[in-house]
Amino acid sequence: MNTKQFVLASRPKGTPTLQNFRKEAVELPQIQEDEVALKGLFYSVDPYMRGRMNDAKSYVPPFTIDLPLEGGVVAEVTDSKSSLFKTGDLVVGVLPWREQMTASAKGLQKIDPAVGQASYFLGILGMTGLTAHLGLTLIGQPKAGETVVVSGAAGAVGVVVGQIAKIKGCHVVGIAGSDEKVNLLKEDFGFDEAINYKTTPDMQKAIAKACPKGVDIYFDNVGGDISDAVINNINFHARIPLCGQISLYNNTETPVGPRIQPRLLTRSALMQGFIVSDFAKHFPDALKELTGWVMADQLKFTETIIDGFDQLPSALLGLFKGENTGKMVVKA
Amino acid sequence: MNTKQFVLASRPKGTPTLQNFRKEAVELPQIQEDEVALKGLFYSVDPYMRGRMNDAKSYVPPFTIDLPLEGGVVAEVTDSKSSLFKTGDLVVGVLPWREQMTASAKGLQKIDPAVGQASYFLGILGMTGLTAHLGLTLIGQPKAGETVVVSGAAGAVGVVVGQIAKIKGCHVVGIAGSDEKVNLLKEDFGFDEAINYKTTPDMQKAIAKACPKGVDIYFDNVGGDISDAVINNINFHARIPLCGQISLYNNTETPVGPRIQPRLLTRSALMQGFIVSDFAKHFPDALKELTGWVMADQLKFTETIIDGFDQLPSALLGLFKGENTGKMVVKA
Repeated sequence: MNTKQFVLASRPKGTPTLQNFRKEAVELPQIQEDEVALKGLFYSVDPYMRGRMNDAKSYVPPFTIDLPLEGGVVAEVTDSKSSLFKTGDLVVGVLPWREQMTASAKGLQKIDPAVGQASYFLGILGMTGLTAHLGLTLIGQPKAGETVVVSGAAGAVGVVVGQIAKIKGCHVVGIAGSDEKVNLLKEDFGFDEAINYKTTPDMQKAIAKACPKGVDIYFDNVGGDISDAVINNINFHARIPLCGQISLYNNTETPVGPRIQPRLLTRSALMQGFIVSDFAKHFPDALKELTGWVMADQLKFTETIIDGFDQLPSALLGLFKGENTGKMVVKA
Repeated sequence: MNTKQFVLASRPKGTPTLQNFRKEAVELPQIQEDEVALKGLFYSVDPYMRGRMNDAKSYVPPFTIDLPLEGGVVAEVTDSKSSLFKTGDLVVGVLPWREQMTASAKGLQKIDPAVGQASYFLGILGMTGLTAHLGLTLIGQPKAGETVVVSGAAGAVGVVVGQIAKIKGCHVVGIAGSDEKVNLLKEDFGFDEAINYKTTPDMQKAIAKACPKGVDIYFDNVGGDISDAVINNINFHARIPLCGQISLYNNTETPVGPRIQPRLLTRSALMQGFIVSDFAKHFPDALKELTGWVMADQLKFTETIIDGFDQLPSALLGLFKGENTGKMVVKA
């Protein structure tokens, strides 16, 4: 039996294009002992995948040319030779960009549809929620009354960071790229202030105005000029969790900007890059807390759901144009 | 009775000159209750003083025009109206650049000449030693077998950082600005490798060669291009205590360089600016440990002692030309 897959056809120089991907038919193998057969339901597309398209040392190994891309996938078990799962179960795991596939049962997790819709396990109840929660709480160490600024605030991680910061009693300011997103952050997600960086001529001044007591925590998803403007407003003992640098991912040359070390030095400030797996031992407790907040309606989530397995490459490219609000997911 | 003092005559633009200082005679006041009269013996000059010459918000308030500069001073008590000190005692404290002065007894600490020479209390047994010890151990968290790189390695803080890193079982590489300093680091202070940045065409490659297992801790005293070269060699989960940025202190425009956030992100690395007072509660334990290492000859120290109170301004300026090896001190 045949199925479809997307492989990496070539490595992008700068911004990726559809030509970097190739769709092809592939034979679906028979399942072996301790394996399951799966049908993909929801596929996650995430900014970090851009890094895996390069042939460079990073926190996750690069994708291989002519092999399928992979990422977070929610799938339905269609056949099982594992005692862990039975036909009809819903699971989540890191899986290839294939419509149907076989996989080792190890490394898959069963999901409970009573807790939230299936796609949430790629987002608020999955890596996205854990990234926001653990980056903010373990590196940011928010205290009630402090000021938290989030860039990429209308993105999947950003909306969660802002809401958890509100739960912790902070003054929360989001930065996003459209008036629509700014309104959403303030009206639906409870941010105290939000700034549209595309229409704001002096970001440093705008941040100073939105943060009258200065910036204690800057949760950075984007990097570049926006981050320069925030860092010029940090307080003594500020904390800066570095979660992403999406504005720089497609640069072909080393990006250059004002040196930040003098400011970190004179503010006794901390900046820490992280990937969610750094905090793996905290996952069970954090997931329990996230689930509780979602079920108590203290934590809302928003998704941009693109219809059709064939749209996977264009959905990924859309992330770099800001086409998503919240989590970008492809529904097969 | 008159004494001499140095005041800040004007704020420097860029590199300070002797014209920014003015020597003047000043009347020595009578000592009051709970005060002591002091004669300065050793005056500390330190890179951080450059920041205080600007009129800018920083971790310590700026010096005031027409008032004396101040810094760490070892002095002899010449008269006392305090129960804490008697004539002949040696004390250390933050005091003005005056030959003789009166001061509140509070804030002064008595020093024990049996432990080490008096000037050591401005260096290895004072703020310098504490800065090196606490920045390295609390932010750097060195583990045996790891690789530590120190910039400004032949400076007052640098020589101590390197030796403590050796005590902790690390592979230690120093960066300094002359062959003489490089030899001193390897032969007198036990550094495994040392690099003369002034004669090394490709610092990134030289650091890679000196650190075959990559860089786990980068103790940064200098900033600028040297730091770029080290940061390009950091390992996953590297730690970067930011202690100084002496290469940038005299810049008149915002220094620009390659953005470091992408590398901190992909290496899950931590960078933390600090001033030694951030760690005040650790001073007593750290001083005890430093004293123990000095008395057991596990920790050596070197000073550049300039003779004459009148040389204070030129000694300070000499720091920015690398004229010191180890701690720069002026002997009255």
